[in-house]
Amino acid sequence: MLTIAVDAMGGDLGPRVAFKACKRLLKDQSDVQILLPLEPSVQPLAAQILKRYLSRVQFLNCDSHIKMSDHPKHALRNSSGLSMHVALQSVKDGLADGVLSVGNTGALLLLARRILGSLDNLSRPVLATQLPTRGKPILMMDLGANLAMTSEQLQELALLAVAWLKAGGEENPAVGLLNIGSEPSKGPDFIREAGEALTRRTDVNYCGFVEGDRMFDGVLDAVICDGYSGNIALKTTEGLIEWLLDLMTTELGQSKSLGWSLPLWRAALRRVDRKVSPARYGGAILMGINGCVVKTHGKSDERTFRYALEYVSEQIRSGRTKKLNDFYQKTYAVGSLSASINVQLVTNPSQ
Amino acid sequence: MLTIAVDAMGGDLGPRVAFKACKRLLKDQSDVQILLPLEPSVQPLAAQILKRYLSRVQFLNCDSHIKMSDHPKHALRNSSGLSMHVALQSVKDGLADGVLSVGNTGALLLLARRILGSLDNLSRPVLATQLPTRGKPILMMDLGANLAMTSEQLQELALLAVAWLKAGGEENPAVGLLNIGSEPSKGPDFIREAGEALTRRTDVNYCGFVEGDRMFDGVLDAVICDGYSGNIALKTTEGLIEWLLDLMTTELGQSKSLGWSLPLWRAALRRVDRKVSPARYGGAILMGINGCVVKTHGKSDERTFRYALEYVSEQIRSGRTKKLNDFYQKTYAVGSLSASINVQLVTNPSQ
Repeated sequence: MLTIAVDAMGGDLGPRVAFKACKRLLKDQSDVQILLPLEPSVQPLAAQILKRYLSRVQFLNCDSHIKMSDHPKHALRNSSGLSMHVALQSVKDGLADGVLSVGNTGALLLLARRILGSLDNLSRPVLATQLPTRGKPILMMDLGANLAMTSEQLQELALLAVAWLKAGGEENPAVGLLNIGSEPSKGPDFIREAGEALTRRTDVNYCGFVEGDRMFDGVLDAVICDGYSGNIALKTTEGLIEWLLDLMTTELGQSKSLGWSLPLWRAALRRVDRKVSPARYGGAILMGINGCVVKTHGKSDERTFRYALEYVSEQIRSGRTKKLNDFYQKTYAVGSLSASINVQLVTNPSQ
Repeated sequence: MLTIAVDAMGGDLGPRVAFKACKRLLKDQSDVQILLPLEPSVQPLAAQILKRYLSRVQFLNCDSHIKMSDHPKHALRNSSGLSMHVALQSVKDGLADGVLSVGNTGALLLLARRILGSLDNLSRPVLATQLPTRGKPILMMDLGANLAMTSEQLQELALLAVAWLKAGGEENPAVGLLNIGSEPSKGPDFIREAGEALTRRTDVNYCGFVEGDRMFDGVLDAVICDGYSGNIALKTTEGLIEWLLDLMTTELGQSKSLGWSLPLWRAALRRVDRKVSPARYGGAILMGINGCVVKTHGKSDERTFRYALEYVSEQIRSGRTKKLNDFYQKTYAVGSLSASINVQLVTNPSQ
């Protein structure tokens, strides 16, 4: 059996969409159990929606949940009664194998780090996701866990991306740095410095700077950026895809003369949607945490929630979080990153 | 007559696409003249493509041009023989009414400021463009002229955006700040500070933070951001639109069973392309310069170049640059911005 703790509270659409998505997962995957930390007043709704599968559902009592508008640090004070805390604690206590949360991202980062702990040789955990491209999906990180970054932190991110991709079976993952131009002279200092340092590393297949418009070429396995730019690039992508799909649907609706070919066109549009829809990509992974924690968008609907649940299930089955953490801890021993950077800087004083 | 100086050198596809676009503009707009600063070796090609319209074309000799890979500061040393310098100088000397350049953006910013001068009460000129949305186009700035910004500079950008939109006839333009969340507590310090200050201003219809996925809603007239994030958001948008349109075209090609309805679909796709293609939006405006200067993408093809030329022509005809500059100089007298900010900060010590 595999157990997922679902923090279903705090999403824009209420917990109902989460319960429906849980029902679907329980139907599709008969070896899955779900833990639901819920305030008592919400439990009857969950019980009703999940009634066929109650033998594989366990409610955990909690007092309240963090709101989207709450400051993340609120969550650290008297957090033990919060649904998010209860979900994370269940992983710590060995009751669940992973967490999916729809709640406040900042609070999730803080609580996950406090309750589950993070990698010793990583300054801070990060948020990552995979985006669709013309070719293979691209891993993008950070997405908002760390708004401002130093060049050393960007390098850590590159190493973490390599570790995650290798844990997934990629032998020599290609990594780029998001920047405003491809020439080494372009961009802010901290990115140029990170680029120079990564060029000198033999343990990262670093492919240089990548501009926003080349992210979707399908050539790279990962693109590294600070959390502010990453968040903006990701959300811009989401908004634009949503709009363009709507636009095509509207064009479809207006083309009455298409007659019998309309269903064919709807099918073509669905195929496009399947290729590009961010919902299909299962949410953001908290990387660098000692445990499998995934965050789904606050505005997730049932479909998005369902993909996110499937994603968590897949991550748990593959043991990827553990593989990633073992690889990272083993390969980049505490202090080795900054030590090796310093050595390289000293031996290349002209740069 | 209206005269445009075209700096056609340095683009990825060579000057031929620029000459062809000039030919089209000269054909469509019989009151337009074009000045072309060109190295002597390139003039025969231009003369051949433009042969029907040579009475409205003037070649200006230059020695060389700035390459995309050159550091912008190169352009400041011995610049007088550069095509970009000759184009800008022709505006300064009253020979041309505006400039379109495909060259190195950084160099264009530096040279435009040196040759034409910039607004007294603006710390630095900025790059702006209009993006398509679900509704009215949105003015986005900065796009890379200033990578790092202070909260005061972000406020200046908001004022400049208001001035530009008012110069275009918008009575009460709605302005937002690009950020990673909509709550006032979200984002880096400089953005939160700019948000607080703009909230207190009565001369800006400030609508708060806007996330990347809400940029395309068509509700705002302008979105303000630092040059690094703006550049990344813009290029992400461009790359994504390009990919999605390709994807739709591929789906079209594969659907052989569509038969007679294929042309209808091609037409639908062209309508979508017309609504969303960044090429239609005429390039980036250098705002805050004493003169009309527009930059088109280094990878511009003939179509992109053509739209950019039409855009410059329209900008010159409307006298928008002068209206913008007059409004900005009059409304925000030198020192008034920082002065008023200080006053506001002092009178609101609790914030």
